[in-house]
Amino acid sequence: MTIELRDVERAGERLAGVAHRTPVFTSRTLEDRAGARVHLKAECFQRGGAFKFRGAFNKISSLDEDALRRGVLAYSSGNHAQAVAIAAGLLGSRATIVMPEDAPAAKLDATRGYGAEVVPYDRWTESREEIGARLAAERGLELVKPYDDPLVMAGQGTVALELLEDAPELDLLLVPISGGGLIAGCATAAKALRPGIRVVGVEPETGDDTRRSLAAGERVRIDVPRTIADGLQAAEPGELTFEVNRRLVDEIVMVSDDEIVEAMAFLFDRLKLVAEPSGAVGVAALLSGKLDARGRSAGVVLSGGNVGAARFAELVSTAAEARGG
Amino acid sequence: MTIELRDVERAGERLAGVAHRTPVFTSRTLEDRAGARVHLKAECFQRGGAFKFRGAFNKISSLDEDALRRGVLAYSSGNHAQAVAIAAGLLGSRATIVMPEDAPAAKLDATRGYGAEVVPYDRWTESREEIGARLAAERGLELVKPYDDPLVMAGQGTVALELLEDAPELDLLLVPISGGGLIAGCATAAKALRPGIRVVGVEPETGDDTRRSLAAGERVRIDVPRTIADGLQAAEPGELTFEVNRRLVDEIVMVSDDEIVEAMAFLFDRLKLVAEPSGAVGVAALLSGKLDARGRSAGVVLSGGNVGAARFAELVSTAAEARGG
Repeated sequence: MTIELRDVERAGERLAGVAHRTPVFTSRTLEDRAGARVHLKAECFQRGGAFKFRGAFNKISSLDEDALRRGVLAYSSGNHAQAVAIAAGLLGSRATIVMPEDAPAAKLDATRGYGAEVVPYDRWTESREEIGARLAAERGLELVKPYDDPLVMAGQGTVALELLEDAPELDLLLVPISGGGLIAGCATAAKALRPGIRVVGVEPETGDDTRRSLAAGERVRIDVPRTIADGLQAAEPGELTFEVNRRLVDEIVMVSDDEIVEAMAFLFDRLKLVAEPSGAVGVAALLSGKLDARGRSAGVVLSGGNVGAARFAELVSTAAEARGG
Repeated sequence: MTIELRDVERAGERLAGVAHRTPVFTSRTLEDRAGARVHLKAECFQRGGAFKFRGAFNKISSLDEDALRRGVLAYSSGNHAQAVAIAAGLLGSRATIVMPEDAPAAKLDATRGYGAEVVPYDRWTESREEIGARLAAERGLELVKPYDDPLVMAGQGTVALELLEDAPELDLLLVPISGGGLIAGCATAAKALRPGIRVVGVEPETGDDTRRSLAAGERVRIDVPRTIADGLQAAEPGELTFEVNRRLVDEIVMVSDDEIVEAMAFLFDRLKLVAEPSGAVGVAALLSGKLDARGRSAGVVLSGGNVGAARFAELVSTAAEARGG
């Protein structure tokens, strides 16, 4: 149940002409601050605004016609939901998304806008897993997991495949970690293509389940972390992702919410890039000095841009006030 | 003193490999709202964060060696200053920029960071033109005007040249207007390549000097407009730009500051693009319905992204409060 370079390459073939080949950005100011060459892979410009489309499409496009006709299922209130909805629509399938009924109306609307059926649930009294299992059984829906699936991991790995095509000299790769699917796919591709490359995962300070798990040599479960990085709130690494990451991830770096907001503002000001909190952690690790990248040629995955102008304004204003600005 | 397609093409040759070939973005949501195909030319990703680099480089690269050695001069507190500083640095020349001493420290620093000498002046008691004339005489500096120069206009026209290469089917082009250099260059290229294309200029409601001038058949001077679009505060069209624009601009549309902020938030939310107020006017014209583009294939020049996260946050928050949000 692990993955290899050829799985990522096969995903790349499936995604060709369907996923956006996202651009790679550089910034002299960022390079001066980091003392390193830096290549930013801008997945904010991916379909659905985040890398998640890659894994979802790779998974759903591997289903047979019968399964596609019955439809797919996901539980998510975030980027994975939209990715599954978009991918299902493109493949002539139909997505059912189990979402908390108190999720922001904009997210519910956006998911419906991509053609998905939203099944709302009360997250205080109901279990999304039970609802999902019932729907899957009743309608024969195929569950698309957000990370713990070899096809999903392989799809996410195409981020590194493309980045290394554009910047083959990389000797360092920074990737955000939540459930670990993105870094599992990226590390698989990167270590196969550039055996000497150092793969560094970045977690929020409060959400260091993968760091603890790697230190313990087994999966460690923590409380659901409080952090502005709402895409990185996994409480425990995935089972399959952890098997990959324990072999291939060299180091974990943690960043604070303040460092994340500073990185978001930096990306906006200097590179004119929109990063959601989870997407900015790699740049936060470089700007804060939490990772010493001096003399390296670093690739950084900016994993998504779904933050919204109002929320961005709130985060930046609050940070400015806290600094007495 | 007018320009033709071949001047723009020559500028394109000079800029090849030096200016960024900026990407073109599309959005289903924007197209649904406008009822039109829309291609956004993202000059926020140009060197210096705005289209201005094109004209400045085209001008400065046309100077002879003696002039380059003596250096160039500009008066500006905005994007033109940075563009001249960057272009001069790349060409082994040196820029002197006359800037108000109370300009934001970040802008003064950024301009110095590009290697320019900043000459501050007191805008209440001193005249930048006099200071500039004195410096030019003493040091033999060449003045680089922000728009009223054929080489500057031709450089800016490469925006349309590239956009029409990427989207040759355009039959409508929306361009922000301040002094009129960007639209003069773009209209020259676009009308030569696509004679039937409709070229629409967009001005802030309070800064409609070009609209009035076109209506009057001669250049009309207005009070310096109050608008958040700080790049569009020209009080009068340029002399040379107006000669071009009276022939080639088909229509002027005006947008309000509120419509501009809405467009900035839309671009951030939906396309993950950073637009400064002046850069968002074309999208504002489409979203507000001020321009009826239904059934058209529209090119929109997003002219720059130099707004800063703190200022963006302020604009978006103020708009949300005004809506009672």
